[in-house]
Amino acid sequence: MTIEQERARRYAERLLGLHTEGEWHQRLEPKMGSAAPKIRNSARMTDRAINRRWEILGSGEEVRSELLDARSNEQRERYRRNIENFVGTVKVPVGLAGPLRVNGLFAQGDYYIPLATSEAALVASYSRGAQVISAAGGCSAMLLNEGLTRAPGFIFRNLQECGRFLVWVTGQMQAFRQCVEGTTRHGRLIDMRITVEGNHVYLIFEYLTGDASGQNIATFATQAIHDYILSHSPIRPHRSYVEANLSGDKKASAQSYLFVRGKKVTAEVILPSSLVESQLRTDPRAIVECWGMGAIGGVLTGTIGVQGHFANGLAALYLACGQDVACVAESAVGVSRFEVTPEGALYGCVTLPNLMVGTIGGGTNLPSQRACLELLGLSGEGHAHALAEVAAGLCLAGELSITAAMATGTFSKAHRTLARGKRSPRIMGFA
Amino acid sequence: MTIEQERARRYAERLLGLHTEGEWHQRLEPKMGSAAPKIRNSARMTDRAINRRWEILGSGEEVRSELLDARSNEQRERYRRNIENFVGTVKVPVGLAGPLRVNGLFAQGDYYIPLATSEAALVASYSRGAQVISAAGGCSAMLLNEGLTRAPGFIFRNLQECGRFLVWVTGQMQAFRQCVEGTTRHGRLIDMRITVEGNHVYLIFEYLTGDASGQNIATFATQAIHDYILSHSPIRPHRSYVEANLSGDKKASAQSYLFVRGKKVTAEVILPSSLVESQLRTDPRAIVECWGMGAIGGVLTGTIGVQGHFANGLAALYLACGQDVACVAESAVGVSRFEVTPEGALYGCVTLPNLMVGTIGGGTNLPSQRACLELLGLSGEGHAHALAEVAAGLCLAGELSITAAMATGTFSKAHRTLARGKRSPRIMGFA
Amino acid sequence: MTIEQERARRYAERLLGLHTEGEWHQRLEPKMGSAAPKIRNSARMTDRAINRRWEILGSGEEVRSELLDARSNEQRERYRRNIENFVGTVKVPVGLAGPLRVNGLFAQGDYYIPLATSEAALVASYSRGAQVISAAGGCSAMLLNEGLTRAPGFIFRNLQECGRFLVWVTGQMQAFRQCVEGTTRHGRLIDMRITVEGNHVYLIFEYLTGDASGQNIATFATQAIHDYILSHSPIRPHRSYVEANLSGDKKASAQSYLFVRGKKVTAEVILPSSLVESQLRTDPRAIVECWGMGAIGGVLTGTIGVQGHFANGLAALYLACGQDVACVAESAVGVSRFEVTPEGALYGCVTLPNLMVGTIGGGTNLPSQRACLELLGLSGEGHAHALAEVAAGLCLAGELSITAAMATGTFSKAHRTLARGKRSPRIMGFA
Amino acid sequence: MTIEQERARRYAERLLGLHTEGEWHQRLEPKMGSAAPKIRNSARMTDRAINRRWEILGSGEEVRSELLDARSNEQRERYRRNIENFVGTVKVPVGLAGPLRVNGLFAQGDYYIPLATSEAALVASYSRGAQVISAAGGCSAMLLNEGLTRAPGFIFRNLQECGRFLVWVTGQMQAFRQCVEGTTRHGRLIDMRITVEGNHVYLIFEYLTGDASGQNIATFATQAIHDYILSHSPIRPHRSYVEANLSGDKKASAQSYLFVRGKKVTAEVILPSSLVESQLRTDPRAIVECWGMGAIGGVLTGTIGVQGHFANGLAALYLACGQDVACVAESAVGVSRFEVTPEGALYGCVTLPNLMVGTIGGGTNLPSQRACLELLGLSGEGHAHALAEVAAGLCLAGELSITAAMATGTFSKAHRTLARGKRSPRIMGFA
Repeated sequence: MTIEQERARRYAERLLGLHTEGEWHQRLEPKMGSAAPKIRNSARMTDRAINRRWEILGSGEEVRSELLDARSNEQRERYRRNIENFVGTVKVPVGLAGPLRVNGLFAQGDYYIPLATSEAALVASYSRGAQVISAAGGCSAMLLNEGLTRAPGFIFRNLQECGRFLVWVTGQMQAFRQCVEGTTRHGRLIDMRITVEGNHVYLIFEYLTGDASGQNIATFATQAIHDYILSHSPIRPHRSYVEANLSGDKKASAQSYLFVRGKKVTAEVILPSSLVESQLRTDPRAIVECWGMGAIGGVLTGTIGVQGHFANGLAALYLACGQDVACVAESAVGVSRFEVTPEGALYGCVTLPNLMVGTIGGGTNLPSQRACLELLGLSGEGHAHALAEVAAGLCLAGELSITAAMATGTFSKAHRTLARGKRSPRIMGFA
Repeated sequence: MTIEQERARRYAERLLGLHTEGEWHQRLEPKMGSAAPKIRNSARMTDRAINRRWEILGSGEEVRSELLDARSNEQRERYRRNIENFVGTVKVPVGLAGPLRVNGLFAQGDYYIPLATSEAALVASYSRGAQVISAAGGCSAMLLNEGLTRAPGFIFRNLQECGRFLVWVTGQMQAFRQCVEGTTRHGRLIDMRITVEGNHVYLIFEYLTGDASGQNIATFATQAIHDYILSHSPIRPHRSYVEANLSGDKKASAQSYLFVRGKKVTAEVILPSSLVESQLRTDPRAIVECWGMGAIGGVLTGTIGVQGHFANGLAALYLACGQDVACVAESAVGVSRFEVTPEGALYGCVTLPNLMVGTIGGGTNLPSQRACLELLGLSGEGHAHALAEVAAGLCLAGELSITAAMATGTFSKAHRTLARGKRSPRIMGFA
Repeated sequence: MTIEQERARRYAERLLGLHTEGEWHQRLEPKMGSAAPKIRNSARMTDRAINRRWEILGSGEEVRSELLDARSNEQRERYRRNIENFVGTVKVPVGLAGPLRVNGLFAQGDYYIPLATSEAALVASYSRGAQVISAAGGCSAMLLNEGLTRAPGFIFRNLQECGRFLVWVTGQMQAFRQCVEGTTRHGRLIDMRITVEGNHVYLIFEYLTGDASGQNIATFATQAIHDYILSHSPIRPHRSYVEANLSGDKKASAQSYLFVRGKKVTAEVILPSSLVESQLRTDPRAIVECWGMGAIGGVLTGTIGVQGHFANGLAALYLACGQDVACVAESAVGVSRFEVTPEGALYGCVTLPNLMVGTIGGGTNLPSQRACLELLGLSGEGHAHALAEVAAGLCLAGELSITAAMATGTFSKAHRTLARGKRSPRIMGFA
Repeated sequence: MTIEQERARRYAERLLGLHTEGEWHQRLEPKMGSAAPKIRNSARMTDRAINRRWEILGSGEEVRSELLDARSNEQRERYRRNIENFVGTVKVPVGLAGPLRVNGLFAQGDYYIPLATSEAALVASYSRGAQVISAAGGCSAMLLNEGLTRAPGFIFRNLQECGRFLVWVTGQMQAFRQCVEGTTRHGRLIDMRITVEGNHVYLIFEYLTGDASGQNIATFATQAIHDYILSHSPIRPHRSYVEANLSGDKKASAQSYLFVRGKKVTAEVILPSSLVESQLRTDPRAIVECWGMGAIGGVLTGTIGVQGHFANGLAALYLACGQDVACVAESAVGVSRFEVTPEGALYGCVTLPNLMVGTIGGGTNLPSQRACLELLGLSGEGHAHALAEVAAGLCLAGELSITAAMATGTFSKAHRTLARGKRSPRIMGFA
């Protein structure tokens, strides 16, 4: 988080050219005077509630109509369980990538993938990668592991109390499973792990959550366990919390990467040299050299895993399909790898340990998001595992396309052509 | 990424209960047969192009109308520079949080913050935090540093070549600045850093990009420098890439955290004990104990920095305001800290080193996204620094609210009430 | 790994002031000519072998006599299984710290701890901490987990082969246990974990190794398993390795930190305020504030865990007691924490997940190292668990002493007094 | 740090088979009774002081004579500035590796490297690697950067105070340089970096320390700056510390890895295919495949950088040559890389960002340690840069040898032959 002193000095100088030190001091000062009117927290969707919010904002009609357009207004009841203090909707353009052929344990077939983004070239790049993969017979994909965690924390007075608690708690799995059953139809407690740090004990509960991404399921189940512990433990903690920040929720973490959070998937493809040449305008060795420098580059920057751009594809897919986009913070880690096979073909694979996806619950019920899932053929029960495998295949497509773009020097040009709106007779051959 | 063998064994067993090993083998096998029709990469927004895409999908009218509603269809030209293979828009509900009083170097005043999310309770929680901060006179916020990076890579044959290149390249800053000037009005090259790893040389170019988030600015400028190097360097690299994965783009990385990517902001608030009691139903010491266990929890999971939930607020703000949501992967790192002051008040602060925000360019030009920026009062030139400070203040509000919810045991209940659609006479007192 | 360009430029300038670019080029050039005579790899301890080595070196008698002094020469046979190409011994001064009272699951009583180091003030600082802890009744310590890992790697052609291998390998634990039994008396296979990354499969075998640190036990046992796999697996890997760098051996790693490598111990102490004042010349709150800033400091630098100085105590203990000092690289991670208790006392704890210690085998058989273990009362069978708990208690003593030194501003002075050889009437009150 | 519940349960069960819960409770309980006699902190080397220590220990003559042998006793005055509470010395066997030809900016020629270790096969393995490198004309090595850091911390009341401090402190570099000059002949302040985290300000001072490793130089210089700040800053901090755990001292950290701590060196070698075959009994592609799986293995475990075994070589070299072995914790990070060149040769390189080495001061003055430096030809002034390059070359030799051992399946056998004392007619062909 550090700043080189010379840069800091120049910045201080620049600021002091704008205002005196006293003025800056004044700007930072807390100011008690009367605040603007409060937004009153509410899930209400009545005209009155919504109008009241817009009145407070005092925005012009043009602004309001962009958010609270007629259709959003009509459909507002459908958003009630997903938002508070509703004022309208934001619209994100959706483009299609594919088809992507996935030969997964769960996903099988050719998928057209809706991607919501405002970054020019993103959809085109993923689509190119998907089509190259499909031309080679598709990618193989394996869901390897799954589990969603919540981690309550318990503070004791000393290690003796911790010890007594540990002896007790390691005998309670059956009781905990029963607590969970009372809170959920979809969820099932599958494991507990224990972390002791001095007089702090964290319990990590791991659940299967069916086709739901399952954050709420895990929270409610863990609350029940937590309450059971407080009423049954032979030793009462000084403090306890339903979540003590050990679940890794919405943060890239070594722990989620090393265990699993959500779904862990690996996907691979083998591209014959001829296909790399005809479709990506380069050769397997050039791809591997470019990936090699980038992989070490990732290592040199201290990322969790090494990869190029999982975040781009995942954010666009999550957004289109009603997944929790905040989870991109944890999902966009993992490893991609390219090699030349002994036969001279290009081997590529990605492994994503923390895919947070579901096909029921959460944002999947919203109208346009559900439409995207249907378009993908993965809406509703029975599709979460396949969605995870498709997400991994999509990331593989992205890694392939961007590495080829870097290796052939066309990355920058593709972005320029598309983002600056210059029509190009042929944008296929690029990024 | 590891899986305990007993769990792996049970999973294998479960799979073999569904299909034979041969069938699974068959599912994973690449399949050459005819693929589904390709989506032809294009930024075209003509009826014909869009219809052609929908024909390929073969979706029913209901699905199509959710994405390609009348208004999205009318406005489609406005999305042309942000998407390819357009088929419509996805709509995400927007709720208001605030007001949040920010006493920043750049942001000054009370802000109503539009948050786009599908997670129940998120807006209510951030809004509660914002209002408590405002009741204490607001948070102070300081933009500390800024800079956007691109990192081309050069492969040489050996260290002798690297050495020769390094001697030359360290004398070229003036020339590189001129290269950059030819590519951008907003961007300015401010620094170069060098990483040598054996015969690989990475150059990290750092830019100021005005009020744009600046990814494209940095890419185009770096391409120009890269091309200049290839034509002027006394020693020609074996291979070179405009980006060798050392910029940290869209990945949580130690490097971006330790230097800066985008904008680095710190924000703080001091809440009198009476306010903590009346508004958050707890006391400063309880907040600090809860934060303390969670901070060590973060350390124990191996996150980059320690924090509770930056991703939630940032994703919702980025999405509403046309920022690149994929950047949540890198922005949602940093540190939050709570302490009891010698006077018994609650001190809280957050520091975010990698805020990727801009108020011009990219997604900020889209209709509803621009409306959100206008609603926030931060649309267009001259507002990017303030937006970064508001984003940090928002994260502080979130940390405060969620820590209070954990400390008082109301976290789970708040989610249940809102996500399950039960009306509550008073949802203020929760999360 | 990065270097700011201005610094690089100045460095290049400085170099070019010493030699021309051509001369530097020449220095870096591989030079084929005749090399100096080779040292012939041998564990031989004969006069002839040793003399031959010294002849090659051509050192004067003074140098030789410092390494190959009479006693080292006499005892040389005792080093035969621990060194090749022997030329003598290096002598490291040993100081005593303590007594340290440890109330552990395994360690019980007052320990005088031999520390081998060349850093002035180190022994004095640890000894002060140990005595303060003892004055409060000693530290409590709990061995929490143990296990030593080796991780062979298998490369397959594709995911289908991996899948087939995984199904088979998850059914082989019994067979693997039998393989292990043939190789070791002390070792026992307790777990296997599996990591799949595309067509690469890593197996992590975890062992208990009795009172030995156990690196060789784990290696030989894993070789047996590896060979069994090659001859029995229904699918033959393209390549395989007995260790594929997934064990975390001798590297600080998130994995070892999150699971265990060697022994995981937590230790705590509660110091009454009066004791902090009389012995450490400060008060609990000041200690906690200093720790607090340092803990965030650790978080800001991106360490694995947060701590002050585990490496100092561990390196000195490992060296004195015949442990593998290279393992300091992995052992010196973990968490220390200080708090003020509700009663106003100082609570302190450390947690070390990767202590690599043993009381038999390896360097514990060397004469002076065994003497140190005996002095400590922990030589031979039955003491490895206690040694791990003592090591944790020692680290707690160090954290306490250094934090107090930082908080009271005496850190620098203590080092100056001791390292510069100024006699001080009273060096107790310092570091 | 987590423990799977089933394992925790079994462990609890095992413990309860040894003692009752009440007995365990009793063992962990602090015990106030009379402690063993204290070791009185002292650098004294008088007979009386040393005898007093041994009396307290009550060890038998045999133990005492192993530590306090005649020669150690005679030379005891030479240890006075490096140890307190002296009771003797521990002897570590030293073996020779080499010759290693280094073509460095600073190191030039063939080096015989003394390695102190108790791990069988270590010396033999490094020596093999060194000889292969020498046979190819030696390795090239470049010192890339150097700098030693200390990081005082300052706590302010709020951001306004921080801001005022920052404006002042960024104008004080000249004054700080003068402070430093008063404390050291060898040290020179070369940079300051600033980290702001809420109301905490850390300053990172970076020094050149000549041929000394320089920890004490940096500490004393920073104390002087710290004191100057306290007496001259326009705003007085609430608390301040000469080191706030932001220097990375003796801890593997992303920060030290990304900047520099001590000396940063890169070294490379190109081995013709014929040499790999004749000396290492394998071929370049096999080495690269093995490295490739191990590199991803390192990435999967979350190490800082990727490498095989830097710790082994560094610990043995540091120990022999009087370096601070605790620094292995920070030095043993970095990157190693192997590739097949377009010509089919093996390219290998290592990059170590944090080598903490010096040739004057600290442990380099001790008798046998100085002898090792002399044997290496790098004792005293003017040799620290060369020592850093030799250290990097040594690590490269180790990486090469161990990767070859893994690739050819001889790793385990070599350890068995040597550690178990079986004489082998030819141990060259192994590890």
